[in-house]
Amino acid sequence: MRPGRTEGRDMKARVHVMLKNGVLDPQGEAVRHALGAMGFEGINGVRQGKVIELDLAEGTTEADVSAMCEKLLANTVIESYSVEIS
Amino acid sequence: MRPGRTEGRDMKARVHVMLKNGVLDPQGEAVRHALGAMGFEGINGVRQGKVIELDLAEGTTEADVSAMCEKLLANTVIESYSVEIS
Repeated sequence: MRPGRTEGRDMKARVHVMLKNGVLDPQGEAVRHALGAMGFEGINGVRQGKVIELDLAEGTTEADVSAMCEKLLANTVIESYSVEIS
Repeated sequence: MRPGRTEGRDMKARVHVMLKNGVLDPQGEAVRHALGAMGFEGINGVRQGKVIELDLAEGTTEADVSAMCEKLLANTVIESYSVEIS
């Protein structure tokens, strides 16, 4: 019915941005303490990061998404990122 | 050398918390506009959420992690969560 729509499939990318190891994560520490205070046991560590889901037009490459991470989504001095395309 | 350490393997859980569909995501919209302003094209939508990585003691179950999500990590009125154990 709508050939343009059938042809141009959506592309999804999921970007994870986490603080690098060794960088203090006060948000994660706060979550760890809160879980302990609520009675949850056996929690040795918590790190909190961001996940960004992008709906992309067909033809966008993983390199494009990496460029977005380098320039905007992650602060590469203190954060690392990973890109999953699906 | 340290049998206790060899035996008690760490367990990792990764929790994704995203705003439910239909809930306005101003953070994601801000990212989408910023990427557009920087010259990136073909971005149809952006949703931003949280990722929480938990280091857990052996014996913690996925049900325990779901309980943590229900009680603290996610606001289930407006957010959905998913748990991956590894």
